[in-house]
Amino acid sequence: MRNIIIASTSTIHGSGYLDYIMADLKVFFEQASTILFVPYARPSGISHDDYTEIASTAFGKIDKKVNGLHTFENPIEAIKNAEAIFVGGGNTFVLTNQLHKNHLIAPLKEVVFYGTPYLGTSAGSNICGLNIKTTNDMPIVYPPSFNALALVPFNINPHYLDPDTTSKHKGETRETRIKEFHYFNTQPVVGLREGSWLLVKNDSIILKGHLTARIFEYNKTPYEVDSGIELNHLK
Amino acid sequence: MRNIIIASTSTIHGSGYLDYIMADLKVFFEQASTILFVPYARPSGISHDDYTEIASTAFGKIDKKVNGLHTFENPIEAIKNAEAIFVGGGNTFVLTNQLHKNHLIAPLKEVVFYGTPYLGTSAGSNICGLNIKTTNDMPIVYPPSFNALALVPFNINPHYLDPDTTSKHKGETRETRIKEFHYFNTQPVVGLREGSWLLVKNDSIILKGHLTARIFEYNKTPYEVDSGIELNHLK
Repeated sequence: MRNIIIASTSTIHGSGYLDYIMADLKVFFEQASTILFVPYARPSGISHDDYTEIASTAFGKIDKKVNGLHTFENPIEAIKNAEAIFVGGGNTFVLTNQLHKNHLIAPLKEVVFYGTPYLGTSAGSNICGLNIKTTNDMPIVYPPSFNALALVPFNINPHYLDPDTTSKHKGETRETRIKEFHYFNTQPVVGLREGSWLLVKNDSIILKGHLTARIFEYNKTPYEVDSGIELNHLK
Repeated sequence: MRNIIIASTSTIHGSGYLDYIMADLKVFFEQASTILFVPYARPSGISHDDYTEIASTAFGKIDKKVNGLHTFENPIEAIKNAEAIFVGGGNTFVLTNQLHKNHLIAPLKEVVFYGTPYLGTSAGSNICGLNIKTTNDMPIVYPPSFNALALVPFNINPHYLDPDTTSKHKGETRETRIKEFHYFNTQPVVGLREGSWLLVKNDSIILKGHLTARIFEYNKTPYEVDSGIELNHLK
């Protein structure tokens, strides 16, 4: 029994933190009065306290209380007791490192598979995949493993960006990077554009938002799927 | 005694492989008739053979023979016996993984510190730094360590890209990523724009090419240095 939102980003251009998705989150978190926030990914190096404050302000708009995981003496217990969980964006390596070091991968996975609602944005969405090998982030710390929560049977590439055909820059495009991934790995990758998210309800995985998503399967030509389409076939 | 070129890229927009730097490479590799090529980074998943062919064609223009490291039964011996070494670009994780697995980090470091000329481009430049924590690449394989050759006492960010102030994309800018790096690490980072390279001769490290480079030091405001400037102070 899964109840998960895997969002490409927390914020879209021209609006505030989580604004674009808040109406959906109100429904998603209907049964929860308190949300456990995992601030480990620390975007721009922000402190756990300051990051939790940002999440708290956003969720104040729909009358939810937010507690930072870092404030609990026993984070494993905090996860087990959570009514709902939100893992914010930032650096995926920093997030994954901290989750592994605090032995939180297995407990998180367990509660989510038992039905605790889970919202991930950006780095918090990357870790919903099998591993973090399709993150866009800079590997600023060395985690003990790249394995992630495996809440879905594929990998996520958040902030998916189409190739800029006018660019003179010789760095690899996102598509090239994901193709390189498939020389060494076989699982599918879902390229989620900003403003898109996956809604996972039990065995159903549906693309939400206004945009298409780009799907990369091993040994197949990448293709687009429309919003509203089920992605249950990917594995 | 070091003799190293650390280049941001192999290719600049509108010209062929290594063309922009070939006149300098002719001087740099003057004493060598054969260059040992390390094709491990496999850009776009290209095979070791095909990648070596590309390097071979380019260096044919200045009458150098190129041998692929993958063709040697004993790669450690091949490195020890090399007249000159070229490590090509591609995926830094794939490159680093293969170097560690073949126990080549220490031998490479040793021969370069004893004077074997070393050319790195892109991923081959990333590994000249202390570690690969400032690569732009996707972590498609999990290397046993992020430690690199430490041929210079700082880190490299190749293909350095200035923030695009017109972008509506919410992924982190390069500068934001490097600032995040400095929340967890203290070594300087040299952001090398495409067409720039560092020329290391013994104790001298000079920025070459037409562009400035962006230097990120721990707890300092990032700053630009001009071409021709020595970077010996960075550590």
